[in-house]
Amino acid sequence: MLFKRKVKITRIKKDQKNFIDDIVLVESPVDLIINSEPLVNIICLQKDLKELAYGFLFSVGIINSINDIRDIKISEIENNIHIELQDYIDFKLENLNMNPVSRVVDTTCGIPSPWRELIKKSLDNVNSKNLVKSKDSLRINSNIIFSAIKKMQISTPLYRETGGCHGAAIFDLDGNLLSVKEDVGRHNAIDKVVGDLLLKKHSFEDVFLTSTGRLTADSVLKAIRAKIPIVASFSAAVESGIRLAFAYGITLIGFARGSRMNIYTHPERIIL
Amino acid sequence: MLFKRKVKITRIKKDQKNFIDDIVLVESPVDLIINSEPLVNIICLQKDLKELAYGFLFSVGIINSINDIRDIKISEIENNIHIELQDYIDFKLENLNMNPVSRVVDTTCGIPSPWRELIKKSLDNVNSKNLVKSKDSLRINSNIIFSAIKKMQISTPLYRETGGCHGAAIFDLDGNLLSVKEDVGRHNAIDKVVGDLLLKKHSFEDVFLTSTGRLTADSVLKAIRAKIPIVASFSAAVESGIRLAFAYGITLIGFARGSRMNIYTHPERIIL
Repeated sequence: MLFKRKVKITRIKKDQKNFIDDIVLVESPVDLIINSEPLVNIICLQKDLKELAYGFLFSVGIINSINDIRDIKISEIENNIHIELQDYIDFKLENLNMNPVSRVVDTTCGIPSPWRELIKKSLDNVNSKNLVKSKDSLRINSNIIFSAIKKMQISTPLYRETGGCHGAAIFDLDGNLLSVKEDVGRHNAIDKVVGDLLLKKHSFEDVFLTSTGRLTADSVLKAIRAKIPIVASFSAAVESGIRLAFAYGITLIGFARGSRMNIYTHPERIIL
Repeated sequence: MLFKRKVKITRIKKDQKNFIDDIVLVESPVDLIINSEPLVNIICLQKDLKELAYGFLFSVGIINSINDIRDIKISEIENNIHIELQDYIDFKLENLNMNPVSRVVDTTCGIPSPWRELIKKSLDNVNSKNLVKSKDSLRINSNIIFSAIKKMQISTPLYRETGGCHGAAIFDLDGNLLSVKEDVGRHNAIDKVVGDLLLKKHSFEDVFLTSTGRLTADSVLKAIRAKIPIVASFSAAVESGIRLAFAYGITLIGFARGSRMNIYTHPERIIL
């Protein structure tokens, strides 16, 4: 799969000009086809596509477990992923009330609004609000978060090679790395680690999510959907993400770097 | 206008826990209404909305100059911008072949595909390809780029205050700052500086664009549309952006930091 490419570049460094080879990321549009109907076009890195498909479908609420998928076929040549849902899933494209052009998930992007509505609807159904809030007794030492952020950075080789992508990771509460993935889009990276945990049949109880990207409503919605109680990022949080995290009882941490972090919501879970 | 907000956070720093006030950015959905028809919903910082409207409409090819707009009214309460085009502009929403949900420009995002198609169409019409390529004699010293990147960083106070937004700036070839703007979305920031130059009736000849964001096809398309021959970013370039820059004769520079830069395309314009 082609997700990075060697290019000839001119590097200027301290008044020296050199012609060198460099590695850049290649984004590809991948079609997700559900029960023979094209659902969405995701612009992403052509890597970990199975995890991406599972994580995306779970995040938007089309599936609730891996058992909901009967079959998955990834075509690297046609750039598509064919998914057959179990018969008991009442999936009808027209129910989504979206036309094909609205269903593009763009590079490095938030989720377009129609998807966000779908996620919110699926949250209402499962009443995540109470489920996440019930994890009141969960406590974690700040040092475990700091070392997790470092582990995520060490485990994202594409970022180190290209500087052009985002990472996401999921850890258990002892700080053991359960999954780490990279993508041009920060949302795709989160979908991939969520999908990876689903495929590994690992529960989302007692894990936390780390990300290199900004914490907007879209990122936080994915954590709520998976009922992950703690989300920590290397980057800033934006008000929409903070508002949502507060309402759903998620501990939201930004600028987790070195020995410093900003806890925006529900700080009681983080102990020194 | 509310584009930032004070929040109470818990800061952990070197094993000390403190409750402090912090500033976070507030994203708002703003409706762009053209000739009484809702065109697009842009999630952005509620700041420099006039520049954003002009720059967006120019970037997607609905207007070609500020004279194409007869009237603009910004309502901060209703979060919308009403624009009346000149009668000579044949603008029909149905020609865009998009439904309302497809016309959301999301947080920190690339432009959804339908817009990108529209931009490409407008590029075909004006034949930018030759126009940009004709600027063959243009040369600029690398130090002017380096100091422009620094100037952009100094002139983006919201980034320093919140760490949560992107900046874009336009400079003349002597390195004088012509416009600098910030937004949660890197594309919105570019639209704002483009709109600002339009409003100032400054030509795009002999200027260059700087950005803090990654150089994807979407960012590069905006430069092509405005016929800006040089684009330099603090961040990485992605293959889609490089391909487009190469084809349209744009000098694309990534990782411009300190005294180092990567020139991905058309390096002949950058001299030591």
